[in-house]
Amino acid sequence: MTASRLRSVRIVGAGLLGASVGLALREAGVDTVLDDTNSTAVDLAVTYGAGRPSDAGDTPELIVVAVPPASVAAVVIDELARYPHAIVTDVASVKTGILQQIRAAGGDLQRYVGSHPMAGRERGGAMSARADLFEGRPWVITSDEQTAPDAIALVRDLAVALGATSVQLTAEEHDRSVAIVSHAPQIVASLLAARLGDAPTASIALAGQGLRDTTRIAASDAELWVQILEANAAPVAEVLRAYRDDLDAVIASLDAPGRPGATADTDADASRGIAAALAAGNAGVARIPGKHGTARRFQQLIIKVDDTPGELARLLSEIGDEGVNIEDLRLEHSPGAAVGFVEVSVLPEVAHGLATALVRRGWGLAEEDQ
Amino acid sequence: MTASRLRSVRIVGAGLLGASVGLALREAGVDTVLDDTNSTAVDLAVTYGAGRPSDAGDTPELIVVAVPPASVAAVVIDELARYPHAIVTDVASVKTGILQQIRAAGGDLQRYVGSHPMAGRERGGAMSARADLFEGRPWVITSDEQTAPDAIALVRDLAVALGATSVQLTAEEHDRSVAIVSHAPQIVASLLAARLGDAPTASIALAGQGLRDTTRIAASDAELWVQILEANAAPVAEVLRAYRDDLDAVIASLDAPGRPGATADTDADASRGIAAALAAGNAGVARIPGKHGTARRFQQLIIKVDDTPGELARLLSEIGDEGVNIEDLRLEHSPGAAVGFVEVSVLPEVAHGLATALVRRGWGLAEEDQ
Repeated sequence: MTASRLRSVRIVGAGLLGASVGLALREAGVDTVLDDTNSTAVDLAVTYGAGRPSDAGDTPELIVVAVPPASVAAVVIDELARYPHAIVTDVASVKTGILQQIRAAGGDLQRYVGSHPMAGRERGGAMSARADLFEGRPWVITSDEQTAPDAIALVRDLAVALGATSVQLTAEEHDRSVAIVSHAPQIVASLLAARLGDAPTASIALAGQGLRDTTRIAASDAELWVQILEANAAPVAEVLRAYRDDLDAVIASLDAPGRPGATADTDADASRGIAAALAAGNAGVARIPGKHGTARRFQQLIIKVDDTPGELARLLSEIGDEGVNIEDLRLEHSPGAAVGFVEVSVLPEVAHGLATALVRRGWGLAEEDQ
Repeated sequence: MTASRLRSVRIVGAGLLGASVGLALREAGVDTVLDDTNSTAVDLAVTYGAGRPSDAGDTPELIVVAVPPASVAAVVIDELARYPHAIVTDVASVKTGILQQIRAAGGDLQRYVGSHPMAGRERGGAMSARADLFEGRPWVITSDEQTAPDAIALVRDLAVALGATSVQLTAEEHDRSVAIVSHAPQIVASLLAARLGDAPTASIALAGQGLRDTTRIAASDAELWVQILEANAAPVAEVLRAYRDDLDAVIASLDAPGRPGATADTDADASRGIAAALAAGNAGVARIPGKHGTARRFQQLIIKVDDTPGELARLLSEIGDEGVNIEDLRLEHSPGAAVGFVEVSVLPEVAHGLATALVRRGWGLAEEDQ
């Protein structure tokens, strides 16, 4: 944490996010005030080192509203009125509804900037707070033509002080974006996992890494996600309607007469429907940026590793000895197996050399993937 | 590879799967014959050490048909007629259609046993073959009341000789199972990734690990998957129709009047629809077996790791020093970040001790997940 240009910040809401912002700002030498309708939460966060209690004479230049989603707009409106010289931001994960409520209440939109720190874990109290919660994470800043440029700059300073990477969008762009990359995927994964509910145990026993990956986020907190999805209902519904239309086309292709056992001739049209869906999926997934924010594709090596302590560490250590950085890594499992497979992603230019070196060192390699 | 009770095996189809079976059986000391309509493929596989060419005097006890999906039934029917004392199996990933074609042709169903080795990668020629391709993987054996018990036992011997774990189902059970755990998830992931096709680049830049995991298999080979999905069209369509009905219910909930900004009172019914879908997803994903084929849940620790060579190896090595086995491991990325997060799954009883030890060793831990 480096010293920040920020001088005084007021944080309203002393939960995980508010206290984490406070901890990081204190480390950066910023005068940080904590407030919360729950005075016990303030005491706890202050004891934890996340800031000092508020005082009637405070003159914050920036206010961070980190209260539960349903209260955000009302608190932002209050704070704008109470501190007429301060810039106000919030950290809620859906932005358009809040902006509309502030506008409807006549709040000063020059001084309001939306924030969405994409720090992954939004639950827990001050005791779970960490100064590095936002480090290396995207921090979306939402603004429009009404927002004062110096207000935007101040919130960008906040993101930088917390180690995050700022990204600027309008509230509508933000909400449509998270509908596509986060909210619709949550529903898609949850509904797929729901299909397992009444499946025979013997069927589920055949689950491989593909199903595990596709359904992993279905384990997310249902109560939290109801709030998020309701707050972004229209953009999420729009993505899901387009998804449903594509799904209907695939089901129609699968239902086409002549199956199963039809020849390629008799169902060429239906095949094209399925093939089109798969090809569109290929093209879409290729657009997801890689580890370093680029669309660069890494090459994968698949290595067999005994399921005993230390084997994985030995493999990674030997890859380090070869001077190769691991860009990504996944374990593949099989039920009841004494061996696992490790998929290591590396830069394409070092993949062949590493494969050769690992074979020489006695590791069993599967063919290079994709 | 241990010595097998099998004596003589004939393999028809000298591609990746056939040649891999051959390599493994040769290592186990089994007399292995290779045949293929493409004599160049046979020559290559023989040179590679996967078996010997076929001879008019061969009397195989077991025949493994490893030809492309569309030819499997016809080749099985031929082999059953040509070798009236041999047991015949195949390795296609969909079983019911093949069984129906053999039955319709009057093939000897006492001597036919279906196989589906779930070895993940089904593409490539003999040059990609590996003796350990099936090691630690499930090998589904399909049979019904017509199948001779000694035929089933012989194919189970084959699976054991190849290091696989055999699982016995009927052809219908198998096809419904893979529709749920593999084929429907492929469509679900492909259609989600397809939504990224026309999304703004700025939106896709916000993609996190959740989207990466949910869409990973959308990168699969489209041509291969068209064949698989067509061969298992009815069971896949059944799963997708149930999925579509659930999706329609969620869309209706999201479209309910009063959104966005409706209070909890006015849309309690709609919320229940979304909450029900998320809760069903929670319950479904909890049924997926863990690494060792049980439903045991591991505990996750999230550790911050600098994105420099050797850091990940050092972490895993220190976890090994603490005597803790890593049950699963995932890397989380953020665009442009110099740090990553490693999620390590361990047995619940060692999680707290490991967390304490890692903090003592200077690692930064996020709160323990879920």
